[in-house]
Amino acid sequence: MSKPSFREDILAAGLQVMLRSGYEGASVRDICAAAGAPHGSFTNHFRSKEAFAEEVLDRYFAHTKGLVKEALNDKSLTPRQRLKRYLDIISRVLADDKWNRGCLIGDFSLETASQSELLRERLEAIFQEWRAPFASCIAEAQAAGEIDSTFDPVDLAEFLLASWEGAILRMKVERGPAALDRFKNIVFQTIFKEQK
Amino acid sequence: MSKPSFREDILAAGLQVMLRSGYEGASVRDICAAAGAPHGSFTNHFRSKEAFAEEVLDRYFAHTKGLVKEALNDKSLTPRQRLKRYLDIISRVLADDKWNRGCLIGDFSLETASQSELLRERLEAIFQEWRAPFASCIAEAQAAGEIDSTFDPVDLAEFLLASWEGAILRMKVERGPAALDRFKNIVFQTIFKEQK
Repeated sequence: MSKPSFREDILAAGLQVMLRSGYEGASVRDICAAAGAPHGSFTNHFRSKEAFAEEVLDRYFAHTKGLVKEALNDKSLTPRQRLKRYLDIISRVLADDKWNRGCLIGDFSLETASQSELLRERLEAIFQEWRAPFASCIAEAQAAGEIDSTFDPVDLAEFLLASWEGAILRMKVERGPAALDRFKNIVFQTIFKEQK
Repeated sequence: MSKPSFREDILAAGLQVMLRSGYEGASVRDICAAAGAPHGSFTNHFRSKEAFAEEVLDRYFAHTKGLVKEALNDKSLTPRQRLKRYLDIISRVLADDKWNRGCLIGDFSLETASQSELLRERLEAIFQEWRAPFASCIAEAQAAGEIDSTFDPVDLAEFLLASWEGAILRMKVERGPAALDRFKNIVFQTIFKEQK
């Protein structure tokens, strides 16, 4: 019988522990315990906690991109409706966690960006990749006259994702959906208002 | 000669270390070293790291309230100009730190809210106190017809502070002012647009 590899288990557990406890707060010991893996197996598979965190972040972003596609590729909706659909999908994920866990990209942005150049550069690349399909969707809404065209689609996409992270931050303190609902209500009646 | 108290030094150093390293990342050892205080003096003055962090947070918020007053009490400006002035003051503080440090309230909101009920409740109270002068200023701008009156002033104040935290989050990853400038540019031409 070959020795089982705990690599996958440790990565899956790492995401859960880091969403709950943050980067510094998630000890390798806790992660291995959550994975049911011996402590030594972490160092067999990962060269450092930083490198491990980058892999956890990449997997989280891959999952997030799936949610982006689910919303923004839904051609049964108008471009503006697709933007709203994305925020509604994320709102549901956050509600499932009782508004107690946020977004790993946002968490790492505040906690690790000033500590780890590796993670900061990866986060910068993630934000640039993340905003692209939103910028396309916003450009489509502008071209169709569905929303106002004053601002550049890339700027609006950056604004939307960053401000939404702010709403999630506020949600974590309040432990309820009010900040998310307020954000959607305000931006879709102003910046992303449907044009008559 | 009486024994010097390191209490103030440890609190001042704690703020700097926590702004740089976060709550979990800031060890008592590092904080005492930065304060030039013996390790034992921490436990003489603070019953736990959590209680210490609450006091650091309170001092940070007291300082922030001074900046709020500096901007929102400036009666030489219109209410809308005062809101913008606040964001400009904070932008300058962030630039002085080379966009490498953010806002302790935002940092703690993401990192500690799900870990410490003490800090989460304190953060909730801080957000409620923080938004009040902004809500008043927004109500004044609405009453004067300077900005649109569709939304409740408290909701707009919450939106402004939370979204601004999102802009700071994005700034920390980019290590530059673009997200701050983008935020101010977009919201003051839309949600807080000057009414003709």
